Amino acid sequence: MIEPLPDTLVAPVVRAALAEDLGRAGDITAQACVPPDARLNVVFATRKAGVVSGLDCARLAMAELDPQARFEAMVVDGEQVQAGTALARVEGNARAILSAERTALNLMGRLSGIATLTREYVDAVAGTRARIVDTRKTTPGLRALEKYAVRCGGGVNHRFGLDDAILIKDNHIAACGGSVAEAVRRAKAQAGHLTKVEVEIDGLGQLDAALEHRPDVVMLDNFSLDDMREAVRRVDGRAVLEASGGVNLQTVRAIAETGVDVISVGALTHSVGVLDIGLDAV
Amino acid sequence: MIEPLPDTLVAPVVRAALAEDLGRAGDITAQACVPPDARLNVVFATRKAGVVSGLDCARLAMAELDPQARFEAMVVDGEQVQAGTALARVEGNARAILSAERTALNLMGRLSGIATLTREYVDAVAGTRARIVDTRKTTPGLRALEKYAVRCGGGVNHRFGLDDAILIKDNHIAACGGSVAEAVRRAKAQAGHLTKVEVEIDGLGQLDAALEHRPDVVMLDNFSLDDMREAVRRVDGRAVLEASGGVNLQTVRAIAETGVDVISVGALTHSVGVLDIGLDAV
Amino acid sequence: MIEPLPDTLVAPVVRAALAEDLGRAGDITAQACVPPDARLNVVFATRKAGVVSGLDCARLAMAELDPQARFEAMVVDGEQVQAGTALARVEGNARAILSAERTALNLMGRLSGIATLTREYVDAVAGTRARIVDTRKTTPGLRALEKYAVRCGGGVNHRFGLDDAILIKDNHIAACGGSVAEAVRRAKAQAGHLTKVEVEIDGLGQLDAALEHRPDVVMLDNFSLDDMREAVRRVDGRAVLEASGGVNLQTVRAIAETGVDVISVGALTHSVGVLDIGLDAV
Amino acid sequence: MIEPLPDTLVAPVVRAALAEDLGRAGDITAQACVPPDARLNVVFATRKAGVVSGLDCARLAMAELDPQARFEAMVVDGEQVQAGTALARVEGNARAILSAERTALNLMGRLSGIATLTREYVDAVAGTRARIVDTRKTTPGLRALEKYAVRCGGGVNHRFGLDDAILIKDNHIAACGGSVAEAVRRAKAQAGHLTKVEVEIDGLGQLDAALEHRPDVVMLDNFSLDDMREAVRRVDGRAVLEASGGVNLQTVRAIAETGVDVISVGALTHSVGVLDIGLDAV
Amino acid sequence: MIEPLPDTLVAPVVRAALAEDLGRAGDITAQACVPPDARLNVVFATRKAGVVSGLDCARLAMAELDPQARFEAMVVDGEQVQAGTALARVEGNARAILSAERTALNLMGRLSGIATLTREYVDAVAGTRARIVDTRKTTPGLRALEKYAVRCGGGVNHRFGLDDAILIKDNHIAACGGSVAEAVRRAKAQAGHLTKVEVEIDGLGQLDAALEHRPDVVMLDNFSLDDMREAVRRVDGRAVLEASGGVNLQTVRAIAETGVDVISVGALTHSVGVLDIGLDAV
Amino acid sequence: MIEPLPDTLVAPVVRAALAEDLGRAGDITAQACVPPDARLNVVFATRKAGVVSGLDCARLAMAELDPQARFEAMVVDGEQVQAGTALARVEGNARAILSAERTALNLMGRLSGIATLTREYVDAVAGTRARIVDTRKTTPGLRALEKYAVRCGGGVNHRFGLDDAILIKDNHIAACGGSVAEAVRRAKAQAGHLTKVEVEIDGLGQLDAALEHRPDVVMLDNFSLDDMREAVRRVDGRAVLEASGGVNLQTVRAIAETGVDVISVGALTHSVGVLDIGLDAV
Repeated sequence: MIEPLPDTLVAPVVRAALAEDLGRAGDITAQACVPPDARLNVVFATRKAGVVSGLDCARLAMAELDPQARFEAMVVDGEQVQAGTALARVEGNARAILSAERTALNLMGRLSGIATLTREYVDAVAGTRARIVDTRKTTPGLRALEKYAVRCGGGVNHRFGLDDAILIKDNHIAACGGSVAEAVRRAKAQAGHLTKVEVEIDGLGQLDAALEHRPDVVMLDNFSLDDMREAVRRVDGRAVLEASGGVNLQTVRAIAETGVDVISVGALTHSVGVLDIGLDAV
Repeated sequence: MIEPLPDTLVAPVVRAALAEDLGRAGDITAQACVPPDARLNVVFATRKAGVVSGLDCARLAMAELDPQARFEAMVVDGEQVQAGTALARVEGNARAILSAERTALNLMGRLSGIATLTREYVDAVAGTRARIVDTRKTTPGLRALEKYAVRCGGGVNHRFGLDDAILIKDNHIAACGGSVAEAVRRAKAQAGHLTKVEVEIDGLGQLDAALEHRPDVVMLDNFSLDDMREAVRRVDGRAVLEASGGVNLQTVRAIAETGVDVISVGALTHSVGVLDIGLDAV
Repeated sequence: MIEPLPDTLVAPVVRAALAEDLGRAGDITAQACVPPDARLNVVFATRKAGVVSGLDCARLAMAELDPQARFEAMVVDGEQVQAGTALARVEGNARAILSAERTALNLMGRLSGIATLTREYVDAVAGTRARIVDTRKTTPGLRALEKYAVRCGGGVNHRFGLDDAILIKDNHIAACGGSVAEAVRRAKAQAGHLTKVEVEIDGLGQLDAALEHRPDVVMLDNFSLDDMREAVRRVDGRAVLEASGGVNLQTVRAIAETGVDVISVGALTHSVGVLDIGLDAV
Repeated sequence: MIEPLPDTLVAPVVRAALAEDLGRAGDITAQACVPPDARLNVVFATRKAGVVSGLDCARLAMAELDPQARFEAMVVDGEQVQAGTALARVEGNARAILSAERTALNLMGRLSGIATLTREYVDAVAGTRARIVDTRKTTPGLRALEKYAVRCGGGVNHRFGLDDAILIKDNHIAACGGSVAEAVRRAKAQAGHLTKVEVEIDGLGQLDAALEHRPDVVMLDNFSLDDMREAVRRVDGRAVLEASGGVNLQTVRAIAETGVDVISVGALTHSVGVLDIGLDAV
Repeated sequence: MIEPLPDTLVAPVVRAALAEDLGRAGDITAQACVPPDARLNVVFATRKAGVVSGLDCARLAMAELDPQARFEAMVVDGEQVQAGTALARVEGNARAILSAERTALNLMGRLSGIATLTREYVDAVAGTRARIVDTRKTTPGLRALEKYAVRCGGGVNHRFGLDDAILIKDNHIAACGGSVAEAVRRAKAQAGHLTKVEVEIDGLGQLDAALEHRPDVVMLDNFSLDDMREAVRRVDGRAVLEASGGVNLQTVRAIAETGVDVISVGALTHSVGVLDIGLDAV
Repeated sequence: MIEPLPDTLVAPVVRAALAEDLGRAGDITAQACVPPDARLNVVFATRKAGVVSGLDCARLAMAELDPQARFEAMVVDGEQVQAGTALARVEGNARAILSAERTALNLMGRLSGIATLTREYVDAVAGTRARIVDTRKTTPGLRALEKYAVRCGGGVNHRFGLDDAILIKDNHIAACGGSVAEAVRRAKAQAGHLTKVEVEIDGLGQLDAALEHRPDVVMLDNFSLDDMREAVRRVDGRAVLEASGGVNLQTVRAIAETGVDVISVGALTHSVGVLDIGLDAV
């Protein structure tokens, strides 16, 4: 089961999204057309098959506008569902539900889209040792939620930001005088005992230097399949190997079969369509 | 030329995105590997062709971490560029540039992706009277920026939130006892003299009732092409007609040729890939 | 009945007002003199006749300091009441009630003052076609609430900000080379299908040019009554006509009788006295 | 000379006011009609005579939208000026100036209105020992600025909130079993050595009890002129005496002549018209 | 009994502390190891003797992560307790309790540390007229809470910030041309009727000048015991006397016995160890 | 050299601290006594020997109140200095400098106190392999800054929050049915490839189980020196060993000599005195 984020982390995002949508005057359509005491009974339902993520966003959006609304989830985040599946039932003030609808759908749709795409990648590498991980190519303001959605899809999270792991790229190496080994050495010297160090290399020629100071992870950037296999052979478990670059649903299986440990996929969060979900009156 | 958003609206988004990425300890890789006084000279360059949007995000991200950095835009937002085009040049503190890189790319890539997709739709309807508009299916927290990106691509904005126009949908009509005419009547009575009223209908059968109280806009939801043509004929300029539902790059031209005024496309913002942009050291 | 604003829009204003009043140490008088468990039973009552607005502010202020307090409204927003009318009853922790009192009164008094003044203008034009509208001359931070108070008084809202309608004034026309027609043309070209366009003119001489590109609204700025009548005659329903400038309770009736559609009154929000309301122990 | 508030306290209010006005899309009129590089040269000028307050608000509003704008104040806060006086000159980007105009005017107009009214009260008591002070009946969110405006008008500030002085009112006395003396005793026992204690009394009968534990200030609430004189005589300098209730420009002189030290006037901030100020192109 | 701060002032501090600890991904240890529905029954217990302060922080931290958690305080703030005392019992969701534990302990431990140290100073001067007061040397962001903790320990609060009392120090005197009397005169002229004025002097030679314009308080900065006694004798009740500088638990009794009214101790908040409190599963 | 935090992370803390101190009316002492144009030339100087940390806080506090102030650091963070050392020179507006003084000193004093204490621990273990690390027992709101101060003192940072590493404690183990091995297994299964896993054990009896699933770090909680040595021998490099509990300046050397890799010291941040720094007029 996927561990939900605490409301403390989700509620501010939901509240900001509602405020953005309500603007200065609130929902003037509901005010004009819907009696203040009208009740509504609705169901969130999928229009397409996919993996659900973000039910808490929908619950919190409804609760923010009608604290007495009854929200009942009928599936759990991380569940694979068919088109037409009822995800949650809401009963409450009609205006509140209609005003919160778009916020709930925007968040749940986006997170479920990410979970669904992640699951496709995870399924594509089933049976290999490779895990599918995300990147920092997330939507500004939604990183915690989007990385949660990746977990809902069966993926694993790369670092959350610039501060929770060291990841040395070409520009950093250049700043160390061009020496991969020196860059890793500095990073290991600086890193705390709970901080991992990863280094990105462009070709097999950098591999030995990269390993010299024992990083935790080596990222193989845009390697050919042959070079990946060779890297797996040479490293032989001394570091975790991450494949990166040129990954898509057509290529990911072959990459996984090279024996790498981790495959990072920016598209999980930077180029994903929403899962089509709607709100139906009962 | 596209009118830029004032920095006052953009800077808080950029600042929040940087804070999210820097976390509690800042960029520990740059701290470990890059000397504090190192300088860097870089160029933002497209890897694919597209329409640019969000140069100000990149400028503000750099300025936030190095107020002395020199940022020089080489194109303008809204410009169509080829793969390999230099978009902007930055010269400044190396750590600052490397730490701001991902924030700049995440925002500019997403906005340019939206602008690029919008342009495809706009080009597809060239020569017709139809304008391409967005929806409220935007990323929470980024609505103002994403709607700006739609303008960069040649699109036009639908309402910005629940409070700046009235848009009556099926649930609102149900709350008025099922009468389209009554819903529009209430809305017109409530609306201020600078607030427009739009009503969504599901079929031609609702058209006369919808027009009875003279809404500004009628949305034709999931109409067949024949029904759209018939609606255009019957309305005869008494209201703006918006086509909605089932719009994609394959269908949009035919829809435009029915004579509708406006075609709204949720996918412009809810299912868009980033434009691939990179940062290259010079 | 006036449609209340959602708590989501009101609560942050109330919370900020309380924080401003409580400062760093809270209510040191209540701490010194009132036993922590003391209860209080109070009534908000008018000292003068007027139109009520802002009951939710009082309710939320009390709830913020004593979530268990029982708040019972005895009238509704928008109601015309006599001096000495009980507006709401509160029973709860004595310290909480005394600490929230000033915040509740400051907000409710101000909003009721606006509603009361608005009602005077609305009554003054009764029987004419003219509607009384507000302006953007509101108190910074309170625009949504003050515009709500105008609605409570029977008024209608002008635009909420710089972004939800286009209003072309003399300086904009000057920036277009002095041509009213050109300014309207540019605005209409830029405006989305849900955005209205209004243009302000200084004299009848600008009227034809103003109408050339079919704005939604023409504002007659400081027109004489004769010129207003002439404008009404010439426009003949092709645009909404708004009278502005020199409006007060002495002049408003005559202005309304010229046949204009809308009369905007800055004084509704920029120069209004509070309605005198007090808190009485029962 | 009036001591200006530090920008650190004023800028957040100005920034929030601008954000409220710019909304999600910014100034769409300026975007449509004013070329992005157009320059403007304007003067803030009074339409009526009054006392100026809030020049810094105007300066900061302009600077927020055009950091390069040149703002030159031509008077200082606290200065009494005639109608038609130029208060400040601004030269900068035309769009920025037009977009910031209303925010600048709303704040400066309101603060100058308060300063002007305060000056009237101060002039009315000239030659007596009485000082004019404000109350906590300020606009939520603007207390620091409105109290500054009172100082600009020659007034003095009462406490800033619930936490910087003790002010015992009837409800507090009731909570102490109805004993004025006991309420003051508790307050003095609790108060720090830099916290003053004031007690409000309703009639001469409470005066001796009120003085028993030596409060710093006694407030005479709605006393007749005779009773005020008698209170002045009896207290004989042992406490500062504050007159409150029923104060207006007709009554304030007579109240001051009773010999009280301080006269508090809620209307200074709760029922004040803006000073009419405009922005004129040069 | 110590008067608790209203939750309105405490909750934002607690919420910010939780957010700082939860970061972007929440408590990943609890997510990995603790079943989502597991319950926990815990007791906050002292490891050392001390004075309790901050129980509300613990309650609010728990409530933020589990609104249904049952929190039962077993002592009250301000109570002196032995090592091993149970302070409060919590029953609720296991993850929530474990995730909130550190935030609760960090705040309650620090506040109790301050209360405990304050009590030592207060006990050291028992029987003298001197009161122990704090300073503005508090932790940024925690001033209201730390000053509350001082009250829990039996101390009294000095001013809360730069704005609620005037305290003239050597640099201010220098800015007045070096004249103590002139500095006090200016301050008294500017001060409102609820604002006290204190002046700091370095030696007896400044005492007469300091008293000339009747400040409320004179601070004797780093006076010898003899000079303090002499100051007490000379002032003879015309002003409150505050001793400052060189105060520690060894010196405070002798200082108090000189007859000063107030002794301020920066160490109460700037150099204090936490009271050791732990969370024990029941 | 210690890598400074980016201003983006430090400025909000400084700004909030200034706002807390300035309150609603600003520095009323400076307003009363210091002419608005007075200049001041000051030096921050140590009163005691120590390790400097937080110069940027002082710089930013001054810049916030006087953007034109010239601030010149004369040492760098992390430098060991004697009593009486000039740390930085400031020249600017006198009021601004006096108003920012306490904020600057509160932050710099606290951070330097932490750095100084850390250095003592680091010096005490010189020549051993042990590194001194902090804990999460930091001041709410200041974690990033306090952990930076630990680095200034030569220490290394433990995790920054609940989300950047897994640390399994007794309560987590209990929630896994009491099995250390099972808890580590679950954690390793859940952890991403850049997330380390640490487990705390109470005695040698848990060591083998703890190692079974290969955690990155094992924390020896309150082990005797003999047991630590035995743990070092048995683990033999298969995991990093962290000693915790009962660490003080008397015991830390002996602990280090057992061969553990890391010694965590809560007192570095939870019980530290400020370094005494003052501001002297030049």
